[in-house]
Amino acid sequence: MTEIALQIKKIAVQAKEAAVLLAKASTDVKNKALTETAETIIRKADFLKRENEKDLVYARSIGLSPAMIDRLTLTDEEIQKMAAGLVEVSLLPDPVGKITSMWRRPNGLLVGKMRIPLGVVGMIYESRPNVTADAAALCLKSGNAVILRGGSEAIHSNLAISAIIQGSLEKLHLPAGAIQLIPVTDREAVHELLQMDEFIDVIIPRGGEELIRAVVTDSKIPVIKHFKGVCHVYVDKDADLDMALKISMNAKVQRPGVCNAMETLLVDRAVAADFLPMVAKQLHEAGVTIKGCQETRKILPDVEIASEDDWSKEYLDLILSIRVVENFDEAVAHIEKYGSLHTEAIVTENYSRAQRFLQEVNSSTVLVNASTRFSDGFELGLGAEIGISTTKLHAFGPMGLEELTTTKFIIYGNGQVRS
Amino acid sequence: MTEIALQIKKIAVQAKEAAVLLAKASTDVKNKALTETAETIIRKADFLKRENEKDLVYARSIGLSPAMIDRLTLTDEEIQKMAAGLVEVSLLPDPVGKITSMWRRPNGLLVGKMRIPLGVVGMIYESRPNVTADAAALCLKSGNAVILRGGSEAIHSNLAISAIIQGSLEKLHLPAGAIQLIPVTDREAVHELLQMDEFIDVIIPRGGEELIRAVVTDSKIPVIKHFKGVCHVYVDKDADLDMALKISMNAKVQRPGVCNAMETLLVDRAVAADFLPMVAKQLHEAGVTIKGCQETRKILPDVEIASEDDWSKEYLDLILSIRVVENFDEAVAHIEKYGSLHTEAIVTENYSRAQRFLQEVNSSTVLVNASTRFSDGFELGLGAEIGISTTKLHAFGPMGLEELTTTKFIIYGNGQVRS
Repeated sequence: MTEIALQIKKIAVQAKEAAVLLAKASTDVKNKALTETAETIIRKADFLKRENEKDLVYARSIGLSPAMIDRLTLTDEEIQKMAAGLVEVSLLPDPVGKITSMWRRPNGLLVGKMRIPLGVVGMIYESRPNVTADAAALCLKSGNAVILRGGSEAIHSNLAISAIIQGSLEKLHLPAGAIQLIPVTDREAVHELLQMDEFIDVIIPRGGEELIRAVVTDSKIPVIKHFKGVCHVYVDKDADLDMALKISMNAKVQRPGVCNAMETLLVDRAVAADFLPMVAKQLHEAGVTIKGCQETRKILPDVEIASEDDWSKEYLDLILSIRVVENFDEAVAHIEKYGSLHTEAIVTENYSRAQRFLQEVNSSTVLVNASTRFSDGFELGLGAEIGISTTKLHAFGPMGLEELTTTKFIIYGNGQVRS
Repeated sequence: MTEIALQIKKIAVQAKEAAVLLAKASTDVKNKALTETAETIIRKADFLKRENEKDLVYARSIGLSPAMIDRLTLTDEEIQKMAAGLVEVSLLPDPVGKITSMWRRPNGLLVGKMRIPLGVVGMIYESRPNVTADAAALCLKSGNAVILRGGSEAIHSNLAISAIIQGSLEKLHLPAGAIQLIPVTDREAVHELLQMDEFIDVIIPRGGEELIRAVVTDSKIPVIKHFKGVCHVYVDKDADLDMALKISMNAKVQRPGVCNAMETLLVDRAVAADFLPMVAKQLHEAGVTIKGCQETRKILPDVEIASEDDWSKEYLDLILSIRVVENFDEAVAHIEKYGSLHTEAIVTENYSRAQRFLQEVNSSTVLVNASTRFSDGFELGLGAEIGISTTKLHAFGPMGLEELTTTKFIIYGNGQVRS
């Protein structure tokens, strides 16, 4: 074993030991660790900014893009938000120990299902240092030990946040192994982490499709996958076109760089001649480049032609592909063929097609008459979001605290045996 | 690609196509396919027995054990039971489309979670041909396409059952790809199946620990794992010793060859001198070999000494290891160290320790004052059982129809956009 492999194994073993204790920790103690951390983060803001500056100096020296540097920067406002996030998690209900249902069997056994932590979570993420605090908070609250592996460009910031968290764990007599940051930035550390299936229960990667595919390929541990969001809005022939316009614009331009932004607009032929010029005008004003199918170009002759590849592309940018479809069935078939199982919306006043869309489109979030941008743990009322799963096992769609747990069967008997 | 690889890929592609249609199939149609299959199985009992005889002739020729031949044999009674099992599944509630919860957000969005099928399930199992009908029924009812890979020794029986199922699918206009049996018995077929992560959503292996470890190692697809059942009964110092005796005997001898049978008995030191002679007498009468710790041997001097390995062994046989523990905490620590996260029971009249056992022991099923043998989908009231998971992701413990589904978010809006 290399030195890094030994180091990662030690971290994994400590996490597993900590997980056993953490599963039994009271809600009060976990909440106090969270609020204590929030207070210390505010008190030590200068320390955090100093450590963050080390990352920024390095980032500038290697010429990271302004957008990347922006994401990396811990301003006072960002530090306030990080602390507020910790307090918010402390206010959420503790999922651990919740009885999700309970029933009595004919033989008198009382059978229930109780939520328990998954065990040890491995989080792999990129540049934002606030993910360190976020992920630590959600895992702690749900009783899971967590091993954090942030981007190398944020290592000083992450180590500083992690040191503050460690202080809180110690103060509350929680095990130090409950929240650990991998201090080495070598890629080898990630590879070794992904082999620790004996100690780690699930890997949650957060980042681009490339990162996630690399993790899935290398991992011996189950991975909660979020590949990409090729989200659709379908404007049905019975849509309220003003509503369709408002929803389309919001889904595309309110924040184009995120996974729940619309990438393809499907428009029913019956309303295409009316709707396309309306939406094209506003898209143009917002600086959006349109790529259209042949039918779209009959109505909007100036737009680029969309290639076959465009239909499955996640632009994450001010680019939109538009397709005119014959009817509802063709829209659903398009989503089935090119979609990513993330989020799709229909705009319609037709009752039957609204219901059919919700039934038949098996993406993780399906909406009637609302923007795809609502596919988000906070917006859906989960209270928090640790990630979004686009595969169906364990969790599908935005994941909150409950998705960091599983259930065990608990049974109250009075001497029953099987015959 | 080899010929087998091409054949498996074709099966997987057909399954994925069928899964899209099956997800939309009505409960009525699915139920009719099940009852139609049940009727045909009864009507074609002679055909099934003739095909089964081919397997039996081969099994005898290679000298399979009488127990194996017994499991392979389709008697009239077994055929009746298989048909009855199909009818039972038709009577269970359809999990697909069930809204598990629904809530309104402050902005008026109505957000719900709806159960949907997982997609394509790959089942890998051993000798019993009735698993073919069972697994097909549960997957069909839960709207999943299934690819079945049974033991090579049962291939003629499995092909016959599969042919009957295909007839029912055709009659009900359900896609032929919904339920497919792999007709080749080469091991290569399993390997190829496990690489089809593009088409198959989950693999459920049923069989011994060796089979499951081999599948997990080879699979690119998530596997629902059932490693082994090293189940414990802990007789607390406040146990009703008559109840403890009844439960211990039931857990050990009622059916010793199954995963929820007790493998280790833990006895509190305070009652060991009273309880051990009682239970040893009955165990002896039932033909059970005891392996004990040093303390046990002070009370039962004739028993073999248990080795360190014995504490984590799944005997699946009339063998029991017994350990005297100092107290509740030592019992829980023993289970944490040597257990398999399957099923554990405490026998006690002490309220606090009963509650603590249910809280603190994070095995998939934990019981107070009842036999470990109740850890079973039917006994817990799930209506059916497709397997038992001993890892925490997606499902933990006995899995029924609901565990063959996931949930998507469905959202009713009236024009909401994000600001």
